[in-house]
Amino acid sequence: MSKDYLTTDIVIVGAGPVGLFAIFEAGMLKLKCHVVDTLENVGGQCTAMYPEKPIYDIPAHPAIEGQALIDQLEKQAEPFKPVYHLNQQVVALTRLQSKEWEVTTSTGTIIRAKAVLIAAGCGAFGPNRPPLEGLEQYEGKSVFYLVKRKEDFRGKKVVIAGGGDSAVDWALSLADIAEKLYVVHRRPKFRAAPESCSQLDALAASGKVEMVIPYQLSGLEGVDGKLTGVEVATLEGEKKVLEADVLLPFFGLAMELGPIADWGLNLNKGHIDVEVGTLATNQEGIYAIGDIAHYPHKLKLILCGFSEAAQAAHAIHAYIHPGEVLHFEYSTTKGVP
Amino acid sequence: MSKDYLTTDIVIVGAGPVGLFAIFEAGMLKLKCHVVDTLENVGGQCTAMYPEKPIYDIPAHPAIEGQALIDQLEKQAEPFKPVYHLNQQVVALTRLQSKEWEVTTSTGTIIRAKAVLIAAGCGAFGPNRPPLEGLEQYEGKSVFYLVKRKEDFRGKKVVIAGGGDSAVDWALSLADIAEKLYVVHRRPKFRAAPESCSQLDALAASGKVEMVIPYQLSGLEGVDGKLTGVEVATLEGEKKVLEADVLLPFFGLAMELGPIADWGLNLNKGHIDVEVGTLATNQEGIYAIGDIAHYPHKLKLILCGFSEAAQAAHAIHAYIHPGEVLHFEYSTTKGVP
Repeated sequence: MSKDYLTTDIVIVGAGPVGLFAIFEAGMLKLKCHVVDTLENVGGQCTAMYPEKPIYDIPAHPAIEGQALIDQLEKQAEPFKPVYHLNQQVVALTRLQSKEWEVTTSTGTIIRAKAVLIAAGCGAFGPNRPPLEGLEQYEGKSVFYLVKRKEDFRGKKVVIAGGGDSAVDWALSLADIAEKLYVVHRRPKFRAAPESCSQLDALAASGKVEMVIPYQLSGLEGVDGKLTGVEVATLEGEKKVLEADVLLPFFGLAMELGPIADWGLNLNKGHIDVEVGTLATNQEGIYAIGDIAHYPHKLKLILCGFSEAAQAAHAIHAYIHPGEVLHFEYSTTKGVP
Repeated sequence: MSKDYLTTDIVIVGAGPVGLFAIFEAGMLKLKCHVVDTLENVGGQCTAMYPEKPIYDIPAHPAIEGQALIDQLEKQAEPFKPVYHLNQQVVALTRLQSKEWEVTTSTGTIIRAKAVLIAAGCGAFGPNRPPLEGLEQYEGKSVFYLVKRKEDFRGKKVVIAGGGDSAVDWALSLADIAEKLYVVHRRPKFRAAPESCSQLDALAASGKVEMVIPYQLSGLEGVDGKLTGVEVATLEGEKKVLEADVLLPFFGLAMELGPIADWGLNLNKGHIDVEVGTLATNQEGIYAIGDIAHYPHKLKLILCGFSEAAQAAHAIHAYIHPGEVLHFEYSTTKGVP
């Protein structure tokens, strides 16, 4: 049988600033890292959300932009030859008899590691999903959170739900393509550009779009992931069903823990409870640092995450090499590879 | 009565990297700082010991020299207008009825502060002092740990004690000035440059220096700080007294806590015990961060001290402004003054 998995000391989940610095700290203790991130580049929110916005509280950087911070951290980690697995999410985490953790990603990468270090920030970016029974079976088949190709909806009966820019803009864009287009919103006012709202009003007046107001999504009808109707309800509980092939809920994006929530970790309002000083979770061999980690007096600051990375690296070293005394050396003395 | 003291929110004891970053973190919470340090420049050990040596583990600085690190931290603190009191040591710390702490320095500066933050590293540099009874009364009068002016010793009977470079070099330098010069050492071998040792041997052979070997200091004789004799002893307990006006013990320099040891703080092998997460000591309103602070799983790394500075600043804010909710803002949003 061929060896169809990778091996390493630590799998770091999340390639944001704190995850990147953890590579350096682990490396200084001769621990090798593989790093998994859902985004296509390293850097997490710094790169994705504010690459050109200055940050003022990185120690010894009076001001540094998000992307520059990440560039420096990536360079600092580089001598330790981290292996990055980008554009993929950790979907499964399994404890092996060897006490290793087997990490499986959404693209099928399998990594066996002695320890797992979660540095996932606020979790992965994801759409806000409506709380509808049986939603999962329709997702990706009849329910979509983004429009990849408008043509996919030609001749379909489409329900758009939401009151923001995405809902309004896609209603305008799909009005000529869909056979029938509903826009479901809980109140008459939309939070969108006034000009777009006026265009939507005009489409509604002409009958090209049917406004379903004030209604909210309340249920799905269909078989085997194929939608036949979307149930909507007023706040008073009055219900009706819209005949539909497709539902497009546009309730914005949010950070979500994703599969991390299923790993048997002690969670606390979307954060992982860890032990102060070691950053150990309740699962042996799994540690968490940065914004996702919670302990008393926690401050969600990148600079505190750096310190947690150092502490977790030392704790993981003690866990992987029990009884081995770590000869503590300062970086000035020891240098880097 | 004139106001003969300064007032501030926080007195920071120690202007090393961690103390400097604490100015920034306190400033972001609108707390003003005065900073006291024994050295003549800010920077602590970074500046004094390794200004040109690269440090590799400052996050987002793949390599930065000690002095450059301090320059950056000083610049980052600057917008918050810290007041530095250099070249002076905190010699007294008194709790006032107002619950403020009154800090008095060796140059007579008096500062009243709502909180004290000790970031004193390993303490102040100081000489290793021989364990002799009544030593204090002679220090600065007949016992000196450094030579400021050779002429002060002209015509005096001088005892030099020690076996390193300082003892040997000063013996060579004072041999022609002193009326009589003894060198006390516990063994024949000196840890000094071979060339210097040969010169000392020659002086001893010529009678200009009297070698007192193998002896150690065991007592002092004199009145009112004026030395008349230095008692020395062999390991076997054989004693003799050297007629002397001056004793120069050269047993090296060490970091010492100094007056900090007398402030009623819980000490643990030269470190101050603090609460994890708040960095609070056992004395209300006194906090400690950086190398001098101890808690379980403590790592003596500058980058961890930075995180402690942030945590202590938040804890001090809560202490000074009890019940006031701190509206937490990221530095990217809030900016700096």
